[in-house]
Amino acid sequence: MRLSGRAVDALRVIRFEPMVNKYAEGSCLVHFGDTKVLVTATVEEKVPPFLRNTGKGWVTAEYGMLPRATHSRTDREAAKGKQQGRTVEIQRLIGRSLRAVVDMQKLGERQIRVDADVIQADGGTRTASITGGYVALWLALQKLVATRDLAEHPITRAVAAISCGLVDGEAVLDLDYDEDSRAEADANFVLAEGGGIVEVQATAEADPFSPTQFRRLVELAEIGTARLFELQKEAIIAAMEGRPDLATPPPLSPE
Amino acid sequence: MRLSGRAVDALRVIRFEPMVNKYAEGSCLVHFGDTKVLVTATVEEKVPPFLRNTGKGWVTAEYGMLPRATHSRTDREAAKGKQQGRTVEIQRLIGRSLRAVVDMQKLGERQIRVDADVIQADGGTRTASITGGYVALWLALQKLVATRDLAEHPITRAVAAISCGLVDGEAVLDLDYDEDSRAEADANFVLAEGGGIVEVQATAEADPFSPTQFRRLVELAEIGTARLFELQKEAIIAAMEGRPDLATPPPLSPE
Amino acid sequence: MRLSGRAVDALRVIRFEPMVNKYAEGSCLVHFGDTKVLVTATVEEKVPPFLRNTGKGWVTAEYGMLPRATHSRTDREAAKGKQQGRTVEIQRLIGRSLRAVVDMQKLGERQIRVDADVIQADGGTRTASITGGYVALWLALQKLVATRDLAEHPITRAVAAISCGLVDGEAVLDLDYDEDSRAEADANFVLAEGGGIVEVQATAEADPFSPTQFRRLVELAEIGTARLFELQKEAIIAAMEGRPDLATPPPLSPE
Amino acid sequence: MRLSGRAVDALRVIRFEPMVNKYAEGSCLVHFGDTKVLVTATVEEKVPPFLRNTGKGWVTAEYGMLPRATHSRTDREAAKGKQQGRTVEIQRLIGRSLRAVVDMQKLGERQIRVDADVIQADGGTRTASITGGYVALWLALQKLVATRDLAEHPITRAVAAISCGLVDGEAVLDLDYDEDSRAEADANFVLAEGGGIVEVQATAEADPFSPTQFRRLVELAEIGTARLFELQKEAIIAAMEGRPDLATPPPLSPE
Amino acid sequence: MRLSGRAVDALRVIRFEPMVNKYAEGSCLVHFGDTKVLVTATVEEKVPPFLRNTGKGWVTAEYGMLPRATHSRTDREAAKGKQQGRTVEIQRLIGRSLRAVVDMQKLGERQIRVDADVIQADGGTRTASITGGYVALWLALQKLVATRDLAEHPITRAVAAISCGLVDGEAVLDLDYDEDSRAEADANFVLAEGGGIVEVQATAEADPFSPTQFRRLVELAEIGTARLFELQKEAIIAAMEGRPDLATPPPLSPE
Amino acid sequence: MRLSGRAVDALRVIRFEPMVNKYAEGSCLVHFGDTKVLVTATVEEKVPPFLRNTGKGWVTAEYGMLPRATHSRTDREAAKGKQQGRTVEIQRLIGRSLRAVVDMQKLGERQIRVDADVIQADGGTRTASITGGYVALWLALQKLVATRDLAEHPITRAVAAISCGLVDGEAVLDLDYDEDSRAEADANFVLAEGGGIVEVQATAEADPFSPTQFRRLVELAEIGTARLFELQKEAIIAAMEGRPDLATPPPLSPE
Repeated sequence: MRLSGRAVDALRVIRFEPMVNKYAEGSCLVHFGDTKVLVTATVEEKVPPFLRNTGKGWVTAEYGMLPRATHSRTDREAAKGKQQGRTVEIQRLIGRSLRAVVDMQKLGERQIRVDADVIQADGGTRTASITGGYVALWLALQKLVATRDLAEHPITRAVAAISCGLVDGEAVLDLDYDEDSRAEADANFVLAEGGGIVEVQATAEADPFSPTQFRRLVELAEIGTARLFELQKEAIIAAMEGRPDLATPPPLSPE
Repeated sequence: MRLSGRAVDALRVIRFEPMVNKYAEGSCLVHFGDTKVLVTATVEEKVPPFLRNTGKGWVTAEYGMLPRATHSRTDREAAKGKQQGRTVEIQRLIGRSLRAVVDMQKLGERQIRVDADVIQADGGTRTASITGGYVALWLALQKLVATRDLAEHPITRAVAAISCGLVDGEAVLDLDYDEDSRAEADANFVLAEGGGIVEVQATAEADPFSPTQFRRLVELAEIGTARLFELQKEAIIAAMEGRPDLATPPPLSPE
Repeated sequence: MRLSGRAVDALRVIRFEPMVNKYAEGSCLVHFGDTKVLVTATVEEKVPPFLRNTGKGWVTAEYGMLPRATHSRTDREAAKGKQQGRTVEIQRLIGRSLRAVVDMQKLGERQIRVDADVIQADGGTRTASITGGYVALWLALQKLVATRDLAEHPITRAVAAISCGLVDGEAVLDLDYDEDSRAEADANFVLAEGGGIVEVQATAEADPFSPTQFRRLVELAEIGTARLFELQKEAIIAAMEGRPDLATPPPLSPE
Repeated sequence: MRLSGRAVDALRVIRFEPMVNKYAEGSCLVHFGDTKVLVTATVEEKVPPFLRNTGKGWVTAEYGMLPRATHSRTDREAAKGKQQGRTVEIQRLIGRSLRAVVDMQKLGERQIRVDADVIQADGGTRTASITGGYVALWLALQKLVATRDLAEHPITRAVAAISCGLVDGEAVLDLDYDEDSRAEADANFVLAEGGGIVEVQATAEADPFSPTQFRRLVELAEIGTARLFELQKEAIIAAMEGRPDLATPPPLSPE
Repeated sequence: MRLSGRAVDALRVIRFEPMVNKYAEGSCLVHFGDTKVLVTATVEEKVPPFLRNTGKGWVTAEYGMLPRATHSRTDREAAKGKQQGRTVEIQRLIGRSLRAVVDMQKLGERQIRVDADVIQADGGTRTASITGGYVALWLALQKLVATRDLAEHPITRAVAAISCGLVDGEAVLDLDYDEDSRAEADANFVLAEGGGIVEVQATAEADPFSPTQFRRLVELAEIGTARLFELQKEAIIAAMEGRPDLATPPPLSPE
Repeated sequence: MRLSGRAVDALRVIRFEPMVNKYAEGSCLVHFGDTKVLVTATVEEKVPPFLRNTGKGWVTAEYGMLPRATHSRTDREAAKGKQQGRTVEIQRLIGRSLRAVVDMQKLGERQIRVDADVIQADGGTRTASITGGYVALWLALQKLVATRDLAEHPITRAVAAISCGLVDGEAVLDLDYDEDSRAEADANFVLAEGGGIVEVQATAEADPFSPTQFRRLVELAEIGTARLFELQKEAIIAAMEGRPDLATPPPLSPE
């Protein structure tokens, strides 16, 4: 058993607080145990230059961390004048993962900008950002449906992410910071609902690991994301209740 | 009466959530109405170069804003590679204000770094940062007292800040964003408990204002901070309850 | 009496040298004792994006300091690749102060860019920049009147700035560097001709100061700026003499 | 069959030119078809701060691309003043991959800095950098063995990298730029000799792909790297011939 | 005689490898002894703002050095976020030198961007960049002639550059790094075919040198560049052979 | 004759105002016609890393230009966050030129930092900076002699700089901005007293120029600097008069 008492295939306590931000079109404060990430989705009525006049939209992401989100304080990137390599890697991953489940033709020439800001970090901030980011993105797009700016919701399937790793030789799901620090291998999986793989990033922290071990990590990720897909759905349903501004309008009657 | 229904000398709903951050020595999530600022205080066992070997400590502050803390999204300073002039001004103000109530000799050669990050902005983020920053700072210093790293708590008096302004010709207290946008004059007051002035910044947004009008703003600030000092005290007391790690140890018995 | 021999309410020797720069539309080398600031005002026939097609103009300011303007050499900001927080604060203050006395509608869609560069610093560089900046700005605008690019001079009233402070417990006017270093409180006042307040920035350097002490500082600022308004006027008149390129043209005769 | 005429599991023409640089301790110009990367390995007798006084060494990497390495010119990162996100990601991957096969205790407190500069890019620059970087690193370390600065060669096993992808629904090995642009999925594998996985990065460019398809990519990577390990060995042997400065000295005789 | 065995007026082994880059319109890998510079010339169908709608073109240059081009490793400018003063000086010199031999009217509104990247540095990298840059530029322009985008080749005369210096009191041609390090004076000459001077930069590294010594350096430069003009021509002829895409088309027949 | 009425070998009105800055160890405001440069020399008791523990000193220079020193306003480099290529070139030239006449052994382990700031630019700012910089440097070093921090004045000979050029086919001395803009060739000469060449930078702005024309430019430079050496001497003598703090102390009597 794990130090935390969790079973090897158990997630931490996962909680979604959708629509927590007063201004953003979509938002979600997501908890993976003590990891807390505030994700907002902002609708912008213009696209990057390479998409102008193509009729297609875009989803992009930025990632940040409050200085004291971490055990010892991390220098503020704005004060240092540049983003760390790690930050850049993570925000590129979030953007790719969310783009994979959006029909850009249906989205039309607009951009959704997803901001994931880590309020508290205890391992798995990138997977929480993607998983919560999906909820914020879904809600922002639903707002466009509600206002008839979109005829159809452009999301094609759900996406969620989870980390797995080898700790003391054993494959475990959803590592917290202590486990992550001691892991021999560390993998992040982004899976689509229905079982497809969107992205895999696996790294041996010590010795190389075997293809067999790697397959076990894939299985754990499938278990973990299956549960995340359920929780995402519940969060979205909860967010819609009592929010007439998010309700899908009836179809336009033919004239 | 004001658009919000508040009396001219009424604060918004003020709420302090002390010790919300798992890692920081001191922290406080402060609400001034819909304005929410997360402040953390980090103890560092080294001082800036100009204070080395002086036996004196330092308090410094950094300020940031989540991109979607605002009505329309603000570009991320880390991505742009530099802090805006407004950010720099505010963090310098926070630092000066908190330093004004700390006995640097008693603090000894260590630095307290205060991070104020705006989660949601609806006017008054700098005054909320100072007022909540005081609570976070007090608690971080108390932790040093509890561990006997400090013999005495080095804070000399409480400090709090509030904005006042002239809106439609009338002096009002604690402006929200809508009032601030329409104000003819805008002033931020940092006052110490007992009535002393720590800092005043007043600006005419339209025509110059008169010394008489200015005196009325000073009076409102005194009313507002009097209430903030009470609330700060309650928050600190609440934070201490049931937290043995913050309890002041008994004096060392003479040998 | 003060170390310098000045009375508590006496300015240093103030001198304006208007139109010293060969190229700028308006310029003024201003001396506040040993503090010397060269201010130029440049007319630009375009405005910032937020003012396009509004018919309104803008005034903006930049501030700099030669490396050896100060007692010990200050690193060159261009070489360090960024402006200090202090620089940014000061140039924002200069811009706000000058904008307060310009009728932007009358100015029309053009921008005046005021550059204040400190040649030698002995305290009060920001107040000298505003006070001399007013002269440079007035002259640049007069040039537009002389060429009939402006129908009316768009300045609504004079503006001047002065520092006051508490030194050894006494309120004094126009601090030099030595006094500033020892001051218990330091305040900068920007006042408009006629007595209105444009901006106040007051800071306790040591203990908080009382509202009574603060009122005394306001009175000193009123005495000091009254004298500055006279000197500004003399400087402008002197600059106009013998400069036909600055003469206001006769009104257009009706056809 | 592929557009290039290659079988699905065939590598492009791979060529290593070891020790091409006059100054570097180790170097290798590696060709993967028309992709050419010059890799140098520099020995530095100091380690990053976090390793000081630990007795352990470090391997780090930097990656760059000449502006006209690409079909259309890419802006020079030095001129733009920052490295792109893609650059940062790749250099972090190269560093991790090479560190995975070095015994840092045996290396001792020194750092090897690997520079991979793309002279011409036709797909697979990161895998070429790792694969050629291994050769440059091995040779630089051998130089330390030859001078008796190292008692033992600290590399524990070979490492090589190759890309695989799904193109027109078919899994293929070692994609060139044209294939890469059309791929539905793109994966980079870093494998250690003996079959262990060091790093996997797989991304769906269009629809998510299935675990079965992914397993096929893993198999192709194993085929490709098996061949790369042979070629690396040949290159190292060729480099050693006739280079007495790289010869391992006889063991020290006991006294 | 010189350490290298060369006569005082002898060049090192000079070699041009034209059209080595798969993508660039023109390219040349030039060797001056162990100094190797890869130069590419890129045709861009737009000009800098100051030339828009003038009918004239532009030639600009950028210069870089691989980190381990030098004896000890040089930090990567992209990683440091800025170009060194030396880099900026050299790229400005390359640009000016090549512009001096191009008829901008004949070039028309397009820009040629020349990238000179030092693969290995053993003295004289700027002179090699100009001399090889001429070849790359000539070939890129010939490509425009071949496609009838240009009616006439816009180069007016050849240009080449060489360094001379005073080493142990003797004037010598084409210094390598060892000579350069010991030189009492160091001069770079850019000469046009036919004997005109395009640019001279001469610096006393120790004591000032005499006008007589300087005249001797000019003579050596004339000897050296005379040989370089021959070699450039041979390289261009070799590059044209068997490259139908570079052949000048027959004149358009009158209709 | 020239547009300005000057003879081809005549300098503009040259004026030195030594010791104009209250704080710097040495300073000089130098006028070359309407070009005005304020140069200060600052003594620092530490040297760059490469000179530590060598017993040798260093002289370095920085160059800047006030935004409205020029006919149309130049953007402030501090605000843009980087120095232009032109700035970097000029400050490197000033530093090299002044170092050429200082005995670094006699200077000892200290650095003199020369700041040249252009107050008004009308051509020749770099030559004015060097020529006036010599005066400021000489005076700063004399101050060290006066305080017995230096046993001997470490300057070995005077240095001065002047521009020459070909304007309308004629060689002329000391170009102003209008001449410089129309020049076919532009050369800057840094000469040492006694006739030695310290630095030459000559550029053809249009067609290449001939060695004969170039020799004429050298002759003019010799004429111009001969006059500058006289004026520098007069300025230094004037500065010393009535300044006991600059007087050379009597030799120490033997004990």
